[in-house]
Amino acid sequence: MQERIGVIDLGSNTTRLIVMGYTPHHSFRLLDEVRESVRLAEGIGADGQLQAAPMERAIATMRLFHTLCRSANVKMIVPVATSATREASNQAHFVARIAAEAGLTMRVLSAHEEAYYGYLGVANSLDIRDGFVIDIGGGSTQVSMVRGRGFVRWYSQPVGALRASEHYVRSDPISNKDFRALETGVAERFAGLDWFASDRGPMLAGIGGTIRTLAEVDQKLCNYPLDRVHGYVLSRDRLESLIEQLRGMNQRQREDLPGLSRDRADLILAGGVILAHLMRRGGFDTIMVGGQGLREGIFYEHFLVGEHPPLFADMRGFSVQNLARIYNYEALHAAKVRELSFSMFDQLRQFHGYGDWERTLLGYAATLHDIGLAVNYYDHHKHGAYLVLNGTLQGFSHREVALIALLVRFHRKGEVSVESLRDVLSPGDDLRVMRLAALLRIAEYLERRKSQVVQGITVELNGTIRLVTRTVGDATVEIWDANRGAGLFRKAYGRDVEIV
Amino acid sequence: MQERIGVIDLGSNTTRLIVMGYTPHHSFRLLDEVRESVRLAEGIGADGQLQAAPMERAIATMRLFHTLCRSANVKMIVPVATSATREASNQAHFVARIAAEAGLTMRVLSAHEEAYYGYLGVANSLDIRDGFVIDIGGGSTQVSMVRGRGFVRWYSQPVGALRASEHYVRSDPISNKDFRALETGVAERFAGLDWFASDRGPMLAGIGGTIRTLAEVDQKLCNYPLDRVHGYVLSRDRLESLIEQLRGMNQRQREDLPGLSRDRADLILAGGVILAHLMRRGGFDTIMVGGQGLREGIFYEHFLVGEHPPLFADMRGFSVQNLARIYNYEALHAAKVRELSFSMFDQLRQFHGYGDWERTLLGYAATLHDIGLAVNYYDHHKHGAYLVLNGTLQGFSHREVALIALLVRFHRKGEVSVESLRDVLSPGDDLRVMRLAALLRIAEYLERRKSQVVQGITVELNGTIRLVTRTVGDATVEIWDANRGAGLFRKAYGRDVEIV
Repeated sequence: MQERIGVIDLGSNTTRLIVMGYTPHHSFRLLDEVRESVRLAEGIGADGQLQAAPMERAIATMRLFHTLCRSANVKMIVPVATSATREASNQAHFVARIAAEAGLTMRVLSAHEEAYYGYLGVANSLDIRDGFVIDIGGGSTQVSMVRGRGFVRWYSQPVGALRASEHYVRSDPISNKDFRALETGVAERFAGLDWFASDRGPMLAGIGGTIRTLAEVDQKLCNYPLDRVHGYVLSRDRLESLIEQLRGMNQRQREDLPGLSRDRADLILAGGVILAHLMRRGGFDTIMVGGQGLREGIFYEHFLVGEHPPLFADMRGFSVQNLARIYNYEALHAAKVRELSFSMFDQLRQFHGYGDWERTLLGYAATLHDIGLAVNYYDHHKHGAYLVLNGTLQGFSHREVALIALLVRFHRKGEVSVESLRDVLSPGDDLRVMRLAALLRIAEYLERRKSQVVQGITVELNGTIRLVTRTVGDATVEIWDANRGAGLFRKAYGRDVEIV
Repeated sequence: MQERIGVIDLGSNTTRLIVMGYTPHHSFRLLDEVRESVRLAEGIGADGQLQAAPMERAIATMRLFHTLCRSANVKMIVPVATSATREASNQAHFVARIAAEAGLTMRVLSAHEEAYYGYLGVANSLDIRDGFVIDIGGGSTQVSMVRGRGFVRWYSQPVGALRASEHYVRSDPISNKDFRALETGVAERFAGLDWFASDRGPMLAGIGGTIRTLAEVDQKLCNYPLDRVHGYVLSRDRLESLIEQLRGMNQRQREDLPGLSRDRADLILAGGVILAHLMRRGGFDTIMVGGQGLREGIFYEHFLVGEHPPLFADMRGFSVQNLARIYNYEALHAAKVRELSFSMFDQLRQFHGYGDWERTLLGYAATLHDIGLAVNYYDHHKHGAYLVLNGTLQGFSHREVALIALLVRFHRKGEVSVESLRDVLSPGDDLRVMRLAALLRIAEYLERRKSQVVQGITVELNGTIRLVTRTVGDATVEIWDANRGAGLFRKAYGRDVEIV
C-alpha cells in the first residue's frame, strides 16, 4: 500500500471520514473511518440559511478530521459537501469559514455529481448491470439508472431523512395526521420521476446511512446469520411492517431497538417512508443494500485512475485476489488446486449438471482455501471460512459469500453441514456444496506436498469413476491421500471413485 | 521465519510429523502437521518382536513424511521413536530398514528422554511451576515431576492405550471381568510410583493423543464454548462418568461419539482407565490438558538454542508478542495504549481493588487490541476477539484467554456482555471485564490519532474522577473523544468521570 487518501463527506446529517491505503489498480484497504453526527441541515428555515450552531459543529469536525488525516500521514485529502451546503443561501460564507478555520477547501458537489459518485461506489461493490441505485441522505435523495454497468440517468430531490423528519414529525410518536402528511409530501417530491420502474432494470440497490440502518434493524429482528450488511436483501414487506412498528414507538423505544443507533432514532421513520414509497412506486419487492457509496465512489476514481469510467473490469476476481493477498496466500499452490478442480468439474458435468456460476465459485474457493492458515494451522479450514464471511468480498450476494465460505470450510475434514448458514442458502445448496467441496478436497490432496507433482487429471468411466492423474515425479503420496480422502466424493456423487 | 524443522514422532499407536517455521528466539509458527495411525505396537507377542505388517506401515509412513519434508523445503528433520521401538527385540533390524528404505536415521528415545521432551512441551506451553505431567502414549505412560518449572523426576511404564487394549479388552463391549482385570493390571504397573501426590505439587498437566481425545469428547458432551483443547480442565468426576459410559458401548457406538476419531475408538477406554487410575492415586480432582508434548519439546530445544534448560523466560509475554507480530500490529500505538491503561489502573486501585493478575491481562489486551484490523476495519474489535480465541496463546488458562478476548472485543463499541463465554469465566468477571475494558477504551480514545500526543495521565479525585492528561501538542480531539466514550467508565466504576 503505497498511498493514503482521506475522503471527507460533509453531509446534511452525518459527516464522515474514510482513510484508504492503496496501490493504484493493485490492492486497497480501509484503514480508518470516523463518523460524527453533525446535523448540518438542522433548523434551516425559509431563508435557506445554515444555522450558527450546526456550522460551528461542522467546522469543529472538519478541523478534527483534518488533524486526523495529518496524524495518519494522509497526503491527499478530498473534502466534499452535499445537499445541505449545496442549497444553503450562505454557502460562500460557510465554505470560506471552513477554509479559514479548518484549512480545508471544500468541493461542493452538484446533485448530478452526488448521484454519480454514489453510483460509482455501488457499481464497484455490488454486482449490478442493469437497474437503479437509491441513495437516501440526510438532506436529499438521489435515484440513478444503471445500464450495462454505466451511469445513464439521475434524479435528485432535496428530501432526506433529516429534512423530512424536521418538516413532518412534530410529535413523539408521530400523529396519524403527520404520518399521512409525510407520506403525501414524499410522494409529491417524486411525482416527476417517470423512468424508475422495475421493468426497465431488474436490480435495485440502496445506499446511505438510512438504508443501511433499516437493513441492520431488520437483520436483528430476523436473527440474520451473517454479520454483514453489504449485499443484504431487504424486502418491501419487511420494510413496511418495520415502518408500522416504528410509527407506534416513541424516541426511547426506538433507541432500544437493536441495530438502531441513538443519533438516528429520530430520523429512521421518515427515511423508511421515503424508501418504501420509492420501492412501491418503482414496483420493486426487494432492494440490495450496499455498504459503499459516495465516499468509496470518490476513492475508486483515484484507485482506478486512467479507467473511464472508473469501474473494475472484473470486480469479483479482483476482490478475491485482494483478500487472498492480505493473508499472503501461496499463489502457486492455490492456482494448481484451482486448475485440478476445474478439470474435474468440466469432465464431470454429466454427473453434477452445474454450470459456469458454480465453476466460478469453485475457482474462488480454490484461491481462498488456505487463507485461514494466517490464524492457526489447526482448524485452518474453519478460520478461512470465518475470514471469507467477515472479509470485504465485493460483488457477491450473501448466498455466494456463504457458498464460498462453506467450500473453504469443507476443503478438508468433516461431514458437510450447511446448517449455520441455511437462512442465506437456497434449496439444493447442500448438495451443491458437497459436490463442489468433494472436487476441491481431491484437488487439495493431489497437491498435498504443494509440489505441483500432479499435472493433470483425466476422468475415465466404467461403472466407477476413475481419476487418472498425469504426474511429474513420484505422486504416490498424493494419490494415496486422495484415495483416503475420497469419501466425500463417493457420498456427493453416489458413485465409487478411484484415483490412480 | 528463516528456518524450517520437521519433527517426526514414530509412536506405538500414532505417527506424526510437524513442520515448524521459525527464527530462533524470535517467532515461530506451525506450518503443517500430518498424522498416520500406524499402530506399530500392534500384535507384539511374548518374544517382543515388532510384527511384519506394522513395520511395513511404519516404513511407508516414514518414507511419506520424508518426501513431505523435502517438498516443504525442510532442511532439518528430527525423526524419533518411542516405546514400541525402544522395547522391540528386533529394534536394530527395524531401524536399519527405515534408514535403508525411507532414508531416515531414527533416534530411539530412552524412557527418560521421552518423559523429558514431553515435559519440555508442557513447560513451554502451559503455566506450570510445581506439579506433574502425565503423558499417556500408545505403548507407554510417563509421569514427570516439575519443580520451579524444572524437570526433577520421572517414572515410565510400558503400558499405554494400545498395549492395554490389546492385553485386556477381549470383547466388545468389554466384559465386567476384563474391565476389572484392566483396572487391576494398570494399578499394578504404577504400584512403585510413590512420589506422585497432589500435596507435593498442586498442578497436574496431561498430554498425548489419549488425554486430548478424552478432553475433546468431554467438551462435546458439555457443549463447551471454546474450540480449544489446549488448556482445557478435565475433572476426574467427568472422566469417571465418561468411562462408565464407554464401558457399556460397542465399537460402533463409540465411533459415533462426537470428538472421538474412528482410529481411537477401540483404545479410548483403556487410555481413560490409565488416566483415571493415576488421578485417583495422586489425589487430583482435575487435570489441565496440553496440546503440545514430545514433538514440540524437541522443537523448543532448537528454537531456544543456547538456553539451559530450553524454557521461555516469559512464555506468556512471548506468546502475546508472537501473536501480535503475526498480524503486523502497530507496536508504538499498542505500547502507548498499554502505558496509559497501566497508569489509570495503578492510580485507580482503590476503586477496582484488582491486583497484578488483572494488570497483566490488561497489558496483554492492550498489545493485542487492534489485531482484528487484519480481517476487516469494520468490527475489528470482534475479529480481534476471534483471533485471540482461536490463535496460539500459550501459558494461559481458558478463563484468561476469554478475558483477554473480551477486553479486545470491548476496547471499542457496545455494551459489555460476557454471555457467550460465561461457562469459562468466574463470578465477578462481568465487572472485571467492564472495569478493565473501560480503562482500555479511554486509553484508546486518548490515542485516537495514534500520535502519542497524550503523554501521561494523573487521576484527581473530588467526588467525580478527573483524568488530567499531560500532552505534547494539541490533544483536543483525543480529549473530546475520550469524554464521549466515557460512558462505560461511568457504568463500570459507578462514578462520574471527566477527562481534561
